[in-house]
Amino acid sequence: MRNKGRQGKLSANNMTIVETQHFSLDQAHLKSGEKLGPLSVAYETYGQLNAARSNAILVFHAFTGDAHAAGYHQGDAKPGWWDAMIGPGKAFDTDKYFIICSNVLGSCKGTTGPDSIDPRTNKPFGLTFPVITIEDMVDVQKALVDHLGITKLLSCAGGSMGGMQAVTWAVKYPQYIHSAIVIAACHRHTAQQIAFHEVGRQAVMSDVAWNNGDYYGKALPARGLAVARMIGHITYMSWVSMEQKFGRKLLDKQKLGYDFSKDFEVQSYLEYRGQSFVERFDANSYLYLTKAMDYFNLAEGRKVSEIFKGVTSDFLVISFTSDWLYPSSQSQEMVRALQAEDADVSYVEIESDYGHDAFLVEFDDQTRAISHYIAKVGRERAGLA
Amino acid sequence: MRNKGRQGKLSANNMTIVETQHFSLDQAHLKSGEKLGPLSVAYETYGQLNAARSNAILVFHAFTGDAHAAGYHQGDAKPGWWDAMIGPGKAFDTDKYFIICSNVLGSCKGTTGPDSIDPRTNKPFGLTFPVITIEDMVDVQKALVDHLGITKLLSCAGGSMGGMQAVTWAVKYPQYIHSAIVIAACHRHTAQQIAFHEVGRQAVMSDVAWNNGDYYGKALPARGLAVARMIGHITYMSWVSMEQKFGRKLLDKQKLGYDFSKDFEVQSYLEYRGQSFVERFDANSYLYLTKAMDYFNLAEGRKVSEIFKGVTSDFLVISFTSDWLYPSSQSQEMVRALQAEDADVSYVEIESDYGHDAFLVEFDDQTRAISHYIAKVGRERAGLA
Repeated sequence: MRNKGRQGKLSANNMTIVETQHFSLDQAHLKSGEKLGPLSVAYETYGQLNAARSNAILVFHAFTGDAHAAGYHQGDAKPGWWDAMIGPGKAFDTDKYFIICSNVLGSCKGTTGPDSIDPRTNKPFGLTFPVITIEDMVDVQKALVDHLGITKLLSCAGGSMGGMQAVTWAVKYPQYIHSAIVIAACHRHTAQQIAFHEVGRQAVMSDVAWNNGDYYGKALPARGLAVARMIGHITYMSWVSMEQKFGRKLLDKQKLGYDFSKDFEVQSYLEYRGQSFVERFDANSYLYLTKAMDYFNLAEGRKVSEIFKGVTSDFLVISFTSDWLYPSSQSQEMVRALQAEDADVSYVEIESDYGHDAFLVEFDDQTRAISHYIAKVGRERAGLA
Repeated sequence: MRNKGRQGKLSANNMTIVETQHFSLDQAHLKSGEKLGPLSVAYETYGQLNAARSNAILVFHAFTGDAHAAGYHQGDAKPGWWDAMIGPGKAFDTDKYFIICSNVLGSCKGTTGPDSIDPRTNKPFGLTFPVITIEDMVDVQKALVDHLGITKLLSCAGGSMGGMQAVTWAVKYPQYIHSAIVIAACHRHTAQQIAFHEVGRQAVMSDVAWNNGDYYGKALPARGLAVARMIGHITYMSWVSMEQKFGRKLLDKQKLGYDFSKDFEVQSYLEYRGQSFVERFDANSYLYLTKAMDYFNLAEGRKVSEIFKGVTSDFLVISFTSDWLYPSSQSQEMVRALQAEDADVSYVEIESDYGHDAFLVEFDDQTRAISHYIAKVGRERAGLA
């Protein structure tokens, strides 16, 4: 049961080489009432778990991310998705802390999801995969943390859907964390957030190749999924960042085409992001994970002011000025509800033009806020030097 | 050539009954260099043209609108799209003014567009219809105004794409208007505005039924067009108006379904708006009109500060606080450029939660601003009492 503390070794050119590991879970009891299992969970760890097992931090990826948060896979030219934040001397300092990141339930990046083989049929689940929730993702992570022999996390942290998981940990497993770092997230999905996801799902489901989710081994619903991703990309950027990056720049600098080919760089960019997404992400996972986010509502059946009754952890809440998908007002609503419960909450609004993407871009400001915060929590709550 | 002043008669239950009229134009010389013709232009008029022909106001519809701006068509239960603004004693007062509204070039509501029969082939144009611009729409309207025997308009007014036409009139035909009323619009489309349209177009063109625009008399690209319209609807509303109207209200008040049927009212609303749009609008017109807006850039090849050199009309610019599709900042940029040219410009920012839709909803505030403004322009510039 003990964790091997496989933190990665330095490659020939001094890049930290990491490997994805797998954990098996017999059964998950889902919020819907259904049971799912056996499950496989892909995860990675960085740094060393200390003898007291008091320096572990669980990091959550966003919607289309994966367990590969930092370092390099053997042979890869690009590091994990939050490598700028996780490593020696970085915000999540692997010289001091033991970082864990797992791929969420329902995804297509190593953890069981709709594209996994259903052992009952020996075929991919497709739409027979049960609808899952943010709470279900968190339950599976809890089983992983138990498996690693860790009884209390120094912190848990993530942006966007990762932030939803962080705040859910704080509400559902208060006694298992010292702190939660909730970035560019919310305590519930609003009508506009649901609406953007609904349009994306309709784009996927309108593609005849989607075939009610049964497309594995056949033509993929590539055009529908690409359109869905294009919508997403607009919401991840800001008016200003799109204007600065593209404005009205033409692909052919000379003139407009007066036809239905692409004239503007922004059109070509969206096409590229749509196409590359199709190559790396499963359309059914797109449906399941957007649904999980749309179902997300910690205030379900109670007042917002009552969400955080019983929390015991500290909180760091971070939002970005130009994020209009998960605007600062939602973070501030969480902060107010936490303050009403006398929780120890720090709030940082980072000035940025990058919109929702800022949590994957604004490393300096996030590092300043997070590294000091974790050190403080370590000193005051976990007895770390 | 004289206009018949067909203003509409009162029906049995006191509703003003109006009829759409048609004007023929031999040929339009398009900005692309292509020629198009003969053309038919659908238009309606309300009120009486005075003897001096000095009380005419041209009103422009937005993207999916039509010439039927006010009054009732015989047998219809619902009036024209801006009936709350056009009529006796209303913002555009038909007791005093002669109002003209025509369907834009490229639309599918009576004026020649891609669904019209190409006389050369006796088949619908489809994608052989030339790409048109806001300037081309305005040129066709200019021909209509000439046809009606009007040499100077008291005002020209519209919201959204209608506002783009209004400001284009002021720049292209300054000597033919006393004033322009530009509502919830801009002087150029930005990257984000282009991006939302591009995704909508890709949704349409991804529908196999679209068939490169050749679907007339066959199955319509209904699913793609519905997805495109759903995206549009999100951008026309605001975060707040969606939250107030829908929030997380469930269709079945009891519980979430834990499947891929619709749970939330906002999903059902979007589906309804998408479906009803398919019944009333042509998918190719969707492509052509969004393209025309994306091409819209009065600053093409020059600085924003130079756009309004040579304008002679007065301006009323109106924007809405929660409009994030055509935000106030764009209206304010126009106002600054107009002020730099010493143009007589009034600017009103109306407090509203309705987002871009506000110009079709906030009648009281718009009426206050517009009715006083038109009266002033009439007194000071057109010799009206």
